[in-house]
Amino acid sequence: MSARLALALDLGGTKLDAALVTGAGEVIAASRNRRPTGRSATPADLDEALAGTIAQALEQLPAGAEFAGVGIGSAGPIDRADGAIYPVNMPGVHGFGLTGAARGAAARVLGSDDFPVRLRHDGGCLALAESWLGAAAGARASLSIVVSTGVGGGIVVDGAPIGGASGNAGHLGQLVVGDSTLEEIASGPSSVVWARSRGWAGETGEDLGRAAAAGDRTARAAIQRSARAVGLGLANASTLLDLDVIAISGGFSRVSDDYVDLVGAALRESAVLPYARATRVVRSALGDEGPLVGAAALVLR
Amino acid sequence: MSARLALALDLGGTKLDAALVTGAGEVIAASRNRRPTGRSATPADLDEALAGTIAQALEQLPAGAEFAGVGIGSAGPIDRADGAIYPVNMPGVHGFGLTGAARGAAARVLGSDDFPVRLRHDGGCLALAESWLGAAAGARASLSIVVSTGVGGGIVVDGAPIGGASGNAGHLGQLVVGDSTLEEIASGPSSVVWARSRGWAGETGEDLGRAAAAGDRTARAAIQRSARAVGLGLANASTLLDLDVIAISGGFSRVSDDYVDLVGAALRESAVLPYARATRVVRSALGDEGPLVGAAALVLR
Repeated sequence: MSARLALALDLGGTKLDAALVTGAGEVIAASRNRRPTGRSATPADLDEALAGTIAQALEQLPAGAEFAGVGIGSAGPIDRADGAIYPVNMPGVHGFGLTGAARGAAARVLGSDDFPVRLRHDGGCLALAESWLGAAAGARASLSIVVSTGVGGGIVVDGAPIGGASGNAGHLGQLVVGDSTLEEIASGPSSVVWARSRGWAGETGEDLGRAAAAGDRTARAAIQRSARAVGLGLANASTLLDLDVIAISGGFSRVSDDYVDLVGAALRESAVLPYARATRVVRSALGDEGPLVGAAALVLR
Repeated sequence: MSARLALALDLGGTKLDAALVTGAGEVIAASRNRRPTGRSATPADLDEALAGTIAQALEQLPAGAEFAGVGIGSAGPIDRADGAIYPVNMPGVHGFGLTGAARGAAARVLGSDDFPVRLRHDGGCLALAESWLGAAAGARASLSIVVSTGVGGGIVVDGAPIGGASGNAGHLGQLVVGDSTLEEIASGPSSVVWARSRGWAGETGEDLGRAAAAGDRTARAAIQRSARAVGLGLANASTLLDLDVIAISGGFSRVSDDYVDLVGAALRESAVLPYARATRVVRSALGDEGPLVGAAALVLR
């Protein structure tokens, strides 16, 4: 049996993940490995992390396997034309040529650079995974949103990720809602800051979830406020894009059992047109391998 | 010479237009004709208008021409799956099977129904024309917006119209901005109502333009208010979709010479991410045949 495998990379503000992924979307566990990054990362740090994770992952490539190429998800914004990244939370690596660096590191291991390398921002990769193997499978037009330390997402129409002019479509966190961005209102840290400004004494999103579950009204209000803003942003996204399904993931989306339902209710309250109100809002069906699976899908599908 | 021609239909709240359009996007002038519709239109009215316009247009089909099919733009929303329309401003025809009715009327003239019939909402058709032969030619991701009695638009990515789940992507007028929709703030009639509520005494969008040009500050403020709301809506659209170009058309977009520039300035002021601020905002390069050309493009391209 000759397996078809992709090398998937997921670069975020705190770590670089790498793994081999099969044509069926399965992550090869033995190949999965991680290096730390961080806000102060330099181009040299990224080069070193790429060389290390890529070599470790490719060690697991079976002899005779068909290598489909390298799929990369990165914190955005990115520039798809030249393969460079401009991640909001890593100012020291703005302009870093991630596509070229990953190609070089993989070619040094493989002894050839005859393979495709494709880059998207992380939200786009996650949306692609959700559309391939998750909650948006079979949808004609879907959107995935992550509500966590930040807020981001991606869009898939007819099975293909919508990249836009430079590959950045889907940056939902920077939608403007009133005088703020969606992320400034609805992220986990923003919700904690809001609750603390009203006298709540906890520290984290997890604290907020526990307090709300125990009946703290300020904590509950902070969660409702986040969901309302996300629902309004998604009402506009669905009006603009006519979406079948919106899948919600991210740590803060688990702050309460009903968070996804609160978002769906807010969408239906805000949206004006029937097709936008009909969009299904569901919880993500991906595990924590979603970003790697989506990155792999860039070259596997 | 055997020409390739499409029959294009454009159904709006006041009229049904029909014409033959060549593979190069030229409207055959002799084939172009119109029937009135109106808010109180019934399904029987539409059947009669379709039969009349279609027969008149098809009379001009040269013997031996290759018939590419029927492309239809309609006031939205629509249901692409069953070819039915639900136009906001024609409540009496909600659920009317426009695709089937147009196919039947054309087949009765042609003696065959072996041709494609494709339906999009009018904003999607206009965006397709703009991307084919107008201000968005060559763009990777573009959006067209009409600011007139209503506000609407469409999206084209990599040359293909983005329809979404049911064909309705691009309904920009129903984006929510604060407590209102974009159309409720920024359309011509809305701008007139706003100016009148502040003491201005004119009646129409044209009056508003003349008064502003003559130095009336309330009229000028009404125009600026419309452009600011459109710019904010478009900042969100560009953040979500990563657009190269936004083309602006519609009667109210000509209310002042600088309306398009005001919209562009508002977009750049509202958008947070560099790629969204970099979107070019330009005036439409289509004449008043744009909707028919875009409808034809549905079957010609």
